[in-house]
Amino acid sequence: MIGRLIDGIKKTGAPIVVGLDPKLEYVPKHIQKAAFDEFGENLTGAAQAIWEYNKKIVDATYDLIPAVKPQIAMYETLGIEGLKVFQKTVEYCHEKGLIVIGDIKRGDIGSTSEAYAIGHLGKVKIGNQTFSGFDEDFVTVNPYLGSDGVKPFVKICQEENKGLFILVKTSNPSSGEFQDRLIDGKALYELVAEKVVEWGSELMEQGYSEIGAVVGATYPEIGRALRKAMPKSFILVPGYGAQGGKGADLVDYFNEDGLGAIVNSSRGIIAAYKQDKYAQFGEEHFEEASRQAVQDMIADISGALENAK
Amino acid sequence: MIGRLIDGIKKTGAPIVVGLDPKLEYVPKHIQKAAFDEFGENLTGAAQAIWEYNKKIVDATYDLIPAVKPQIAMYETLGIEGLKVFQKTVEYCHEKGLIVIGDIKRGDIGSTSEAYAIGHLGKVKIGNQTFSGFDEDFVTVNPYLGSDGVKPFVKICQEENKGLFILVKTSNPSSGEFQDRLIDGKALYELVAEKVVEWGSELMEQGYSEIGAVVGATYPEIGRALRKAMPKSFILVPGYGAQGGKGADLVDYFNEDGLGAIVNSSRGIIAAYKQDKYAQFGEEHFEEASRQAVQDMIADISGALENAK
Repeated sequence: MIGRLIDGIKKTGAPIVVGLDPKLEYVPKHIQKAAFDEFGENLTGAAQAIWEYNKKIVDATYDLIPAVKPQIAMYETLGIEGLKVFQKTVEYCHEKGLIVIGDIKRGDIGSTSEAYAIGHLGKVKIGNQTFSGFDEDFVTVNPYLGSDGVKPFVKICQEENKGLFILVKTSNPSSGEFQDRLIDGKALYELVAEKVVEWGSELMEQGYSEIGAVVGATYPEIGRALRKAMPKSFILVPGYGAQGGKGADLVDYFNEDGLGAIVNSSRGIIAAYKQDKYAQFGEEHFEEASRQAVQDMIADISGALENAK
Repeated sequence: MIGRLIDGIKKTGAPIVVGLDPKLEYVPKHIQKAAFDEFGENLTGAAQAIWEYNKKIVDATYDLIPAVKPQIAMYETLGIEGLKVFQKTVEYCHEKGLIVIGDIKRGDIGSTSEAYAIGHLGKVKIGNQTFSGFDEDFVTVNPYLGSDGVKPFVKICQEENKGLFILVKTSNPSSGEFQDRLIDGKALYELVAEKVVEWGSELMEQGYSEIGAVVGATYPEIGRALRKAMPKSFILVPGYGAQGGKGADLVDYFNEDGLGAIVNSSRGIIAAYKQDKYAQFGEEHFEEASRQAVQDMIADISGALENAK
């Protein structure tokens, strides 16, 4: 699957991923109204509004990008109705040819991690047939439980040709509270990075591993060091845009081949119409603001990569 | 909510929780057949089988125990159909007066953790009304992202009178890979334990905090040390039974008041009928085997606590 992601990045020239992390407050009023009129002001109506919103954003941006990253928490917050929209969004993005990175940050002990891996990346056997639960292409995984919490995901990736991004250094302000603490002279995130390399060493495509890492855009010096520590791991970079990261800060997350990183923006794209910069599109044409924001993000990052050559 | 848990433990004399972690292979053949005959050998049929299985186990054990702990991964593995059964199980256990600990091991950055917290413990506002997603009473949380990944959960607990169990030292073989590493002379799990105390210091009921910890039964010496480090935190103890923990090993997870810990058993209870010890019940009467296994577990743990006095 990492090979498909690389192909997609090369084809679009866009090492970026749109974070489909919808909040009801981002959904334009006309979409909310239509959904509430049809289904009521309840979980079903809210989920429908988010579904229509997602679809319009995907329709307006899919030809520019290789991948999307729906954040499952934003769907789970609406219970079953929200998760149905998560599932429909994964399917719809697949129909549009997009790679789907499920931002699920799961992780548990052995057989329980296996259950998550089957539900999100694999197939469950019932009688003589197999069925998919959510069927993403990559998922994010939390490493706190150690190797036997991660390896069941790796096993399913091997069987199904799928991939992972393991949380190494997250983008939030307090990520250093545990992740930066020194152990025998190395930060915890460095130890996790070493394991990411180990876990992914046998799953290579086009020179990169199916097992990548999450490293926040908000810590560029750490990004630089982790790029060197995990030369064959793709880095999924959250924290661009709304969280403060800029293209110029992200050059060192990439390898000299121009690959090795994929930068996520969520709010900055999906709620672009709320920014002064894109106000001219208006709420009615929010999806055009999102398209423009994607184009601006591609220009920012590819410009920064060009300048760094 | 921790006060309700304490009341439940005192009333039943059972500091135990039944882990509702159903796998299709545990479900007796007659239940599978009935479900597949009605809904087909597919995700819906498998989910229905698990629902009938859960109900029978809850019906056979609810009067003996204060709480259940459904492991959401086992439901998520069946996609939406499985998650519907997770939701129905939470509701059904509430109807039976049980406290529900959602074993979800979620954790993300600020607003995303808030979305999980709302979906599992809180209420989402849509228009002028509020709605619950899954509505558990406690959930388990992964601390790798630090305080700003946990505090949104704490905030919802405060608003909704609910609680958490934070992963401190997990029961799996490789939990030490990161959790045991020394930082300024202290293991990472000790640093997390200090934070658990801090996060929970303002949410107290009956002398205990709403913010508890997960510490595996499989590391009794660590359990002893963590008991002292977090004197007012309840410890949720996985790893009893099938994973190897015994009542005598668990005495030091409790405080001198006989409280402070709640021990989980999953497979050892819900698939008891598969053990030689309970074979006399037969597959047809699997729920009676589960009831006997609960009674034996209560006797084992309360006997050990009695001997230790």
